[in-house]
Amino acid sequence: MLPTITVFERSPDGGKGLARDMPVRWALEEVGQSYGVRLVSSRAMKEPAHRALQPFGQIPTYEEGDLALFESGAIVFHIAEHHAGLLPGDANARARAFTWVFAALSTVEPPIVNRGFDEPWYEQRRPVVEEGIRNRLGDLSSRLGDAGWLDGAFSAGDLMMVSVLRRLKGSGILEEYPNLSAYVSRGEARPAFQRAFAAQLAVFTSVSAD
Amino acid sequence: MLPTITVFERSPDGGKGLARDMPVRWALEEVGQSYGVRLVSSRAMKEPAHRALQPFGQIPTYEEGDLALFESGAIVFHIAEHHAGLLPGDANARARAFTWVFAALSTVEPPIVNRGFDEPWYEQRRPVVEEGIRNRLGDLSSRLGDAGWLDGAFSAGDLMMVSVLRRLKGSGILEEYPNLSAYVSRGEARPAFQRAFAAQLAVFTSVSAD
Repeated sequence: MLPTITVFERSPDGGKGLARDMPVRWALEEVGQSYGVRLVSSRAMKEPAHRALQPFGQIPTYEEGDLALFESGAIVFHIAEHHAGLLPGDANARARAFTWVFAALSTVEPPIVNRGFDEPWYEQRRPVVEEGIRNRLGDLSSRLGDAGWLDGAFSAGDLMMVSVLRRLKGSGILEEYPNLSAYVSRGEARPAFQRAFAAQLAVFTSVSAD
Repeated sequence: MLPTITVFERSPDGGKGLARDMPVRWALEEVGQSYGVRLVSSRAMKEPAHRALQPFGQIPTYEEGDLALFESGAIVFHIAEHHAGLLPGDANARARAFTWVFAALSTVEPPIVNRGFDEPWYEQRRPVVEEGIRNRLGDLSSRLGDAGWLDGAFSAGDLMMVSVLRRLKGSGILEEYPNLSAYVSRGEARPAFQRAFAAQLAVFTSVSAD
């Protein structure tokens, strides 16, 4: 049975692939798993039928037979555990890959999503927010050094870290760290990323053309 | 070989058990695994020896033989995977438990840690931040209902969610959701929680007495 994911009917990012279905699509493409997609409108997302799957009224969700999951981190984790291609075979390296998944979502992402341009006081707040982002990026840049990926071969940890860093593209901040910028480009150059990106863009384009 | 974790030499929370070693200690106590503790000063935390273990210069870390991990979520996950007591046996229920670990760290915690009382503009920002917290807590409260735990038996997901919600104790916000308040109390009443709490408090008390 094909897994089915839910995605925005009309992604607020305008097709840039920054919505949280993108790492899930990318993971499914990396492991070669076909999947179905169900579009959810911003209204339907807050209704009981969707909240039964996703209590916070968000996307994505993941359904496969009797199993229903939410949280992009947990879904990527589930895909990585059940297919070859996103985790090393060695048990310690596998545990370290999960460390990077959590580092991406729990340490690197929070300061990034704190950029809040529509808040009236954001100009006052900007230096503190950007310092928080640069602290994380500086540390990550030092750790990555001139390696291709964070811990040997490409893993679910890199998939999630690249997905998080992509939110900064064009901000000028990511570009201050050339090795992180190159790391993001390396992720985006993967065929699986490109298929996932094209698939989410096709949804946005077709809905916008209606 | 006993695992060793690193913790603050002098926790900035004054012994309230809000530092990120607390969920790791709690998980180790739930599964009955003894562990060693290494205190790290705020200066040593930023030095190369510690950054080799924790690239962002934070605690906790977890060392066990050749394995070195960081990120409280990843460490709890590792402990849960290798011992009985924090995950259900059923594969689907196990995947759902991980969903709640990610929901705690990636969906519920970020708005909570956005409370920034020392920012000069915080009074302006407070309504937006508190609305963000109440959105998450309202959704979580609806999902929990009158159940004891989030998905059947107590799991790593509850351990992490209770740990995150504890940051709101005394704010008045958690107390607006009586079922969440009772859920936190239920977590704190577990003998494993109490042993973990006492252990971190003993570190704080003994260092402060020097």
